[in-house]
Amino acid sequence: MLSAFMGFIEEGDEVIIFEPFFDQYISNIEMPGGKIVYVPLHPPPKGATQNSSAGEWTIDFSELEAAISPKTKMIVLNTPHNPVGKVFSKDELLKIGELCVKNNIIILSDEVYDRLYYVPFTRIATLSPEIESLTLTVGSAGKNFYATGWRVGWLIGPPHLIEYVAAAHTRICYSSVSPLQEAAAVGFEQADANGFWQSAVKEMRGKVDRFNEIWKELDLPFSDPEGGYFVLVNMKKVNLPADYPFPDHVKNRPRDFKLSWFLIQEVGVAAIPPTEFYTDDNAHIGEDWLRFAVCKEDAVLESAKERLRGLKKYISN
Amino acid sequence: MLSAFMGFIEEGDEVIIFEPFFDQYISNIEMPGGKIVYVPLHPPPKGATQNSSAGEWTIDFSELEAAISPKTKMIVLNTPHNPVGKVFSKDELLKIGELCVKNNIIILSDEVYDRLYYVPFTRIATLSPEIESLTLTVGSAGKNFYATGWRVGWLIGPPHLIEYVAAAHTRICYSSVSPLQEAAAVGFEQADANGFWQSAVKEMRGKVDRFNEIWKELDLPFSDPEGGYFVLVNMKKVNLPADYPFPDHVKNRPRDFKLSWFLIQEVGVAAIPPTEFYTDDNAHIGEDWLRFAVCKEDAVLESAKERLRGLKKYISN
Repeated sequence: MLSAFMGFIEEGDEVIIFEPFFDQYISNIEMPGGKIVYVPLHPPPKGATQNSSAGEWTIDFSELEAAISPKTKMIVLNTPHNPVGKVFSKDELLKIGELCVKNNIIILSDEVYDRLYYVPFTRIATLSPEIESLTLTVGSAGKNFYATGWRVGWLIGPPHLIEYVAAAHTRICYSSVSPLQEAAAVGFEQADANGFWQSAVKEMRGKVDRFNEIWKELDLPFSDPEGGYFVLVNMKKVNLPADYPFPDHVKNRPRDFKLSWFLIQEVGVAAIPPTEFYTDDNAHIGEDWLRFAVCKEDAVLESAKERLRGLKKYISN
Repeated sequence: MLSAFMGFIEEGDEVIIFEPFFDQYISNIEMPGGKIVYVPLHPPPKGATQNSSAGEWTIDFSELEAAISPKTKMIVLNTPHNPVGKVFSKDELLKIGELCVKNNIIILSDEVYDRLYYVPFTRIATLSPEIESLTLTVGSAGKNFYATGWRVGWLIGPPHLIEYVAAAHTRICYSSVSPLQEAAAVGFEQADANGFWQSAVKEMRGKVDRFNEIWKELDLPFSDPEGGYFVLVNMKKVNLPADYPFPDHVKNRPRDFKLSWFLIQEVGVAAIPPTEFYTDDNAHIGEDWLRFAVCKEDAVLESAKERLRGLKKYISN
């Protein structure tokens, strides 16, 4: 990713990213002097009171158009999306792609969860030759094979874009790890031969469903992921004790940080506060949600569910 | 290395590096906006006419002092040195270290060949507490274990410096490859237990001596390395045919590029032209030398020697 930003972004160039965002983007854009323009994903209107699909997190296209300026150099997509779990629809991607073609904006499409989706998945680069010629698609062996420590990833795109990425990559990493490149290549062959992608989808979807039982039991609304292994849960109904002793580094953060701290202390389950993936202006959108990762052994998920029952007494229904 | 530069260098900061230099430094310093100030290593005065030691490549300390300004933020050392093969003496390092302490200059000591030396090797960080507190020492599992595709390296230094490197590192690489970090750790234990470092030194020194026989036979002066696996050979006596058809990308480069091209075409041996590691102003220092790597199977070295006998007819003694 850094190679892509370093390859194209000059001082003052603008890059559009959707909120919430994968936090590593920010420093990677700012390192070469880029300015980030944020466009929020809007949560399901009834997300605080009933279960919803991650697909109901939506782009307001008038906001997206308003974010485009003559300085806009690049837009970052992420599908399946972390932390929301949204898989952008073909229709959404087509609208985004056409805006980019019209305004000559490079599309950096982060598709690292591209083997883990529960609804149809579309790659924006496939939608038209004009869109393809502006698109860099990001993939990750670490994510595909659940080996995130491998640090093997790639960008796919047209030669006239890849040449800049390659030049930056040589100066940043020199190369990615050669024995693990080979291992990933073998992994792809073996995954196809053994139906690994299908079984991984089935297994992970099972974990999502297994884990989400607890939210039904507690009557806490969740956003069901369309891809990836994160579940967003709305905690508006959880009452934090007024006198709870939050430490200073939590006290002054949005409510989701307090919820996250409280869950760790009181029930022993860790979740990520999503406002970490929001700017201050839009933090209010995420402050009632927590992100849970279900990429765990089933026994761990069951143990987490048992612990989460301890939340019952703090919930007002 | 990039993490170290990104962690400290701001727009306009000056970084001193010795010529010839490992070329990756340059872009890494320029990415965060650093300005490079070059100080040449001076070759052995009689290097064109007789064999010499890589230790005879010397720093003119008045040149080094003159290169220091109030903007000097960092100096890059490289010992054992690539491409020269010099191991900086304790006395040289002490002088450099004292200058850095006096001027509050961070020392980035690239010691990636730190297990391959044929004369006493000193780490500058060990010379005094004041020097240590300014020094970041660079190591490499890829170089130590002859597995350069592994991309596992490290910086050692005081916490008040490392914290900035770690912050940049997280944003550049996130982490280095975890299974190969583990492998490198086991490698160090096994290397110690099995006397690997000593046998590697003995073996590589043997390869240097085996390869250098050809230069004695051809009566071409070479600079005998004190560390690492590169030999610099002075080719002043090689007469390039006046009408030799050099391609355009070679024709307009210094003489060492022509020598390198000629060797590949006429005898089938590849060497690196060292002026690639010099600025234009100082390229004249390197233009009669070529860098040969001896980290090869003995059979390959013997085959290279046999091929290099084909140079005889172009040499005037």
